[in-house]
Amino acid sequence: MALHGICGIFVVLSVGLISFTPSCDGGNILVFPVDGSHWINMKILLEELHAKGHNLTVIRASNSWYIAKKSPLYTSITIKMDLGFEEFFDVFLNDTMRAQIERASALTFFKLTKDFLSMISTAHSVWCDTLMEILDDEKMIKSLLDSKYDLVLTDPAVAPGAVLAKYLKLPMVLNVRWITSGEGHFALAPSPLSYIPVPGSGLTDKMNFIQRVKNILFYSIIVFQQKFLVGPGYDAICEKYIEGGCDVFSILQEADIWLFRSDFVFEFPRPTMPNVVYIGGFQCKPAQPLPADLEDFVQSAGEHGVIVMTLGTLVNALPKDVADGIASVFAKMPQKVIWRHKGERPSTLGNNTLLVDWMPQKDLLGHPQTKVFVAHGGTNGVQEAIYHGVPVLGIPLFFDQYDNLLRLQERGAGKIIELGDVNRHSFEQGINEVLHQDSYRQNMQRLSRLHRDQPMAPMDQAIFWVEYVMRHKGAPHLRTEAYKMPWYSYYCLDVLLLLLTVATVLLFSTVAIFRFLCCRSRRKTKTKQH
Amino acid sequence: MALHGICGIFVVLSVGLISFTPSCDGGNILVFPVDGSHWINMKILLEELHAKGHNLTVIRASNSWYIAKKSPLYTSITIKMDLGFEEFFDVFLNDTMRAQIERASALTFFKLTKDFLSMISTAHSVWCDTLMEILDDEKMIKSLLDSKYDLVLTDPAVAPGAVLAKYLKLPMVLNVRWITSGEGHFALAPSPLSYIPVPGSGLTDKMNFIQRVKNILFYSIIVFQQKFLVGPGYDAICEKYIEGGCDVFSILQEADIWLFRSDFVFEFPRPTMPNVVYIGGFQCKPAQPLPADLEDFVQSAGEHGVIVMTLGTLVNALPKDVADGIASVFAKMPQKVIWRHKGERPSTLGNNTLLVDWMPQKDLLGHPQTKVFVAHGGTNGVQEAIYHGVPVLGIPLFFDQYDNLLRLQERGAGKIIELGDVNRHSFEQGINEVLHQDSYRQNMQRLSRLHRDQPMAPMDQAIFWVEYVMRHKGAPHLRTEAYKMPWYSYYCLDVLLLLLTVATVLLFSTVAIFRFLCCRSRRKTKTKQH
Repeated sequence: MALHGICGIFVVLSVGLISFTPSCDGGNILVFPVDGSHWINMKILLEELHAKGHNLTVIRASNSWYIAKKSPLYTSITIKMDLGFEEFFDVFLNDTMRAQIERASALTFFKLTKDFLSMISTAHSVWCDTLMEILDDEKMIKSLLDSKYDLVLTDPAVAPGAVLAKYLKLPMVLNVRWITSGEGHFALAPSPLSYIPVPGSGLTDKMNFIQRVKNILFYSIIVFQQKFLVGPGYDAICEKYIEGGCDVFSILQEADIWLFRSDFVFEFPRPTMPNVVYIGGFQCKPAQPLPADLEDFVQSAGEHGVIVMTLGTLVNALPKDVADGIASVFAKMPQKVIWRHKGERPSTLGNNTLLVDWMPQKDLLGHPQTKVFVAHGGTNGVQEAIYHGVPVLGIPLFFDQYDNLLRLQERGAGKIIELGDVNRHSFEQGINEVLHQDSYRQNMQRLSRLHRDQPMAPMDQAIFWVEYVMRHKGAPHLRTEAYKMPWYSYYCLDVLLLLLTVATVLLFSTVAIFRFLCCRSRRKTKTKQH
Repeated sequence: MALHGICGIFVVLSVGLISFTPSCDGGNILVFPVDGSHWINMKILLEELHAKGHNLTVIRASNSWYIAKKSPLYTSITIKMDLGFEEFFDVFLNDTMRAQIERASALTFFKLTKDFLSMISTAHSVWCDTLMEILDDEKMIKSLLDSKYDLVLTDPAVAPGAVLAKYLKLPMVLNVRWITSGEGHFALAPSPLSYIPVPGSGLTDKMNFIQRVKNILFYSIIVFQQKFLVGPGYDAICEKYIEGGCDVFSILQEADIWLFRSDFVFEFPRPTMPNVVYIGGFQCKPAQPLPADLEDFVQSAGEHGVIVMTLGTLVNALPKDVADGIASVFAKMPQKVIWRHKGERPSTLGNNTLLVDWMPQKDLLGHPQTKVFVAHGGTNGVQEAIYHGVPVLGIPLFFDQYDNLLRLQERGAGKIIELGDVNRHSFEQGINEVLHQDSYRQNMQRLSRLHRDQPMAPMDQAIFWVEYVMRHKGAPHLRTEAYKMPWYSYYCLDVLLLLLTVATVLLFSTVAIFRFLCCRSRRKTKTKQH
C-alpha cells in the first residue's frame, strides 16, 4: 500500500485586516486562493484576468509562501494565520519517502495515512478559526460588502473562500484541482465506483473485482474525511453565520462554475456536469528560447538529445544512494542531462549532466532536443509534458503523483518506477525503454495533438466562463439542485419502498384469496362427503 | 394522462441500390439520416459540412418525403423501403388530437399509447429488414467499403445507420434528438430518476414523491420499449452480422461524438458525458428581411406588434370549432396576426389576421415587431423562439411538444394551454397574459442572451467535432467503456454482496465465540457447583 494522492494542500493564511484597497474598473473579483503550487496556477489565471481589465482583490496570509503583498496584478487583503505544522509536514514528507524506499510494512503506511488525516484535520480547524475571525470582523465584512464584488474566485482545496462567497451572497467560480475532501466530481456528478477510480487508490477506469473492492474502501476514507475531519468545523460555521443554515458540501455544490484543472486527454472519461469547464493545461504556452548557455548545452547533445529531470519543489533531493545510482546511469548515456537537484552533489555525476537549482521547465520541455522528462508527476509537470509531447519516466513521491503518472502509463505515454524500486538497474532499464521504444513518444505526441485540438484554448475558456458568470450574475441554469434532496429521495429509495410494498400486498392478497377459495372448496367437499 | 413526447420519428426508407457516386475531396462522410423534420436539421448540418469541402453521401429512400435524390450537397444512395403505415399514422394523429379535445378517459390514452408502441415496433422491424437487405447486398457493401469513408453521421432515432457504421468499422457521430427508445442521455450518462424527468412524463426536474413514482413508471415504458419492441430485431442482426456479436444499445453507446440538438438553456441541468456536444439552436441565424408584402403587413401593426402562429407540419388545421374560437379572439385584438393555417378558413376571421400556407418563420420570429409566438412546441420552433427571444403561448399536440413547452413555462418564458382546454376564454386570457405580462418577454430574452453567450456558436461546435473525429479517427478517449460491464458489476452489487457477507460472517463468528465462551464458563460454574 502506498500513500498515493490523498489530496493534501498546505497553505499558510492569517487573520487580521492589514491592507485593503478595492478598486472598480472592469469586473470586480474577490480571490481567495490556496498557497503553494495552487497559487502558481491561480496567479496565471489572475494575470489573464488582469490583462482583460478586471480588478482583483486577493486575500493572502501575512507570512504567505508565494503570495506577494504588493503586486501590480491585484490589491491585497492580508490576514494573519499560522498553520504551525510546517516542521511536522517536512517530517511527514521525509517519513513517507523513507517508508517507500524501505518498503515499509502496511502498518507503517496506515500510520502515515493516520498522521496525514490528522494533519488535514488540524489544518482545516485552523482555517475554520480564521474564517470565523473574518466573519466576526465587522469592519472587514462591511468593507467586503461595500466593494460590491461581481464574484468570488476561489480554490476549494480549502473552504473559507466558498463559505465567504455564500455569506456575501456572491456568485462563485472554483479554480479546482481538489476539494476539501478529495476529487470534486464525487461531490458534483454521479460517480459509479465501478469505473471511476478514487484518487489515491492507484487504480484506473478498468477494474477487476478485487480492485473495485479496494476502490470502495478508498472511497470510504474520503467519506470519513469529509464527514468527521473536514465537514463538522465548517458546518458549524455555516450553521452559525449563514442565514437558514447549510453545510460546506452544499456550498461547494452550489458553485456557479467549476474550472477543473484537468481534461479527458489526461483524466479517464467519466460523467460530468454542465457547469464543469475543463481547463487542464491552461498554463501551457509555446516554448520561449532558452538562455544562451543552456541552449549551447542542449545543442551540444547533438542527435542524442537531452533528458530533463526534476522531482518538484516539495523535495530538494533524493536520498544520497538513490541519487548516486541515477547519476551513474546518466553518466553512461550519450544524452545530455539537465537535472534540478538542490541536495549534495552525487559522487557519480558524469560530465554530461548539468545540475541546476532552477530551470525554465516549460521551455526545456518545448525544446525539440528534449527526449524524455524524468519527473515526480505533479499535475503541472504532467500537463506540460502532454502539451509538449515529451514522454515521461515517472518516480512518484507523494499525494496525487502516482495517479497522475498512472494516467500517462495507461496511455503508453509514460512509465512509472516506484520509489522503492529505483536502483541503478531499474532506472537504466526504464530510461532506455522510454528513450528508445518509439511507442512512448508516439503515444505522448498523440496526447499532445488531442490536447491542443480543442474548440477554444483552455485559458480562453477559463476567462470566458469567469466573465460569463459576471455578465449573467451567476449560472444557476447550469447546475442541478438535486443536492438539496434528502439522500433517500435522490436515490428514489422511498419510491422503491412504495413499489415493493404494493407488490408485496398484491402478492399476499392473491395468496390469501387463493387459500380462502381453496379452503372453502375443500370445506364444501368435506361437507358433501359427510 | 396525455400522450406527451413519447419519442416517435416517422421515416420512409427503402432498399435496393439505385444510384451511388462516391467522391473523395476533403473528408468523406457517409450520412444515414432520418426523414421528416429530422432531415431538415440534418440538412442544415450537411450544408455547412459541404461548405467546408467535405464529400457527403446520403442514404435515402426512393419515396422519401424530403430527401432529394439529386442535390448539389451530396451524392445519394437510394434504397427501397416502405413503412406502409402512413395512413395509420394520420389516423393515429387525428385520434390523439380528438382524445385530447374530448378529454377522453385514461383507457383511451392507454389504447393510443399501445397503438403508438405497436406502430414503433412495426416501423423498427421494417427498418431491420431494410438493414439486413443492405448487409446482404455484397455489391453495396463492397462499394461502401471501397469508398473509404472517414465516418458515419447518423440520426439514432432509427438504428440502421449505427449498425452499418459498426459493420463497416467506421467512427460514428450522432446528430441526435432522440434515440431508438427515448432520450439518449439515459443510455449514456447516469440519470437519477429523482430529478431527471423521463420524456413524455410531463414532469420537470423538481418532483414530489408522487411525481417521482410517475417518472419511474414512465421510465419502465422506455425500458420495455427498448427490451421488447425495439431491441430484439436489431440485436438479432448485430448477433448475425457483427463479429463477436453485440447489441444495438452498445453500438449507440460506442458512438464517438453525440451532437445533441439541445442545450442547458432549454434542457434541465443533468449529468452528461465528455463526448456529448450540445448544439441546440445550431440552425438559428439572424433574421433576413421579410418579403415586401409581409413586411408591409407587419409594419401596419404599428406599436401593437404582431402575433405569429403555427402548429407545425404534422397537422394542417385544428378542428373547426377550436380554430373559430381562436380566430374570434384574434379578431378582437389590436395586434396583427400571421397564422399558418391550411384547413378551412375560420368563419370568425378578423381583418387583422393573415392566413398563410407557409411563412418565413425564422425571419418573422427575428422581426422586432413580433410580440408572441403561438406554437405547438416542436423542438425547432422552440429553439428559434429562444434564439430570437420571443415568448411563446404553447398548444402542444403530440410527442415531445408538451415537454418542450414545459421547459419554457418553467422559466417563465412561455405558457401552455393544453388542447383540451383551448376555448375562446382560455385562449384570450392566455394570449393577453403572454402579451402584456412583461415577465414573459423579459425571461425569454434572458434565455436568448444565455443561449447566444457561448464560447463557440453551436453550428461551429458541430463542425469542429465532426472534423475532430475525422482528424483523430474517432474519439475513444472521450467515452467510457463502462457499458461493457455486467450490470451487477457496474452497480458494484458484487462488491456489496462480498462486504455484506464479510460483515455477516464477522457478526456470526463474534456471536458464536461469545456463546461458546459463555457456555464454557457456565459449564465450569456448574462443574464447580457439582
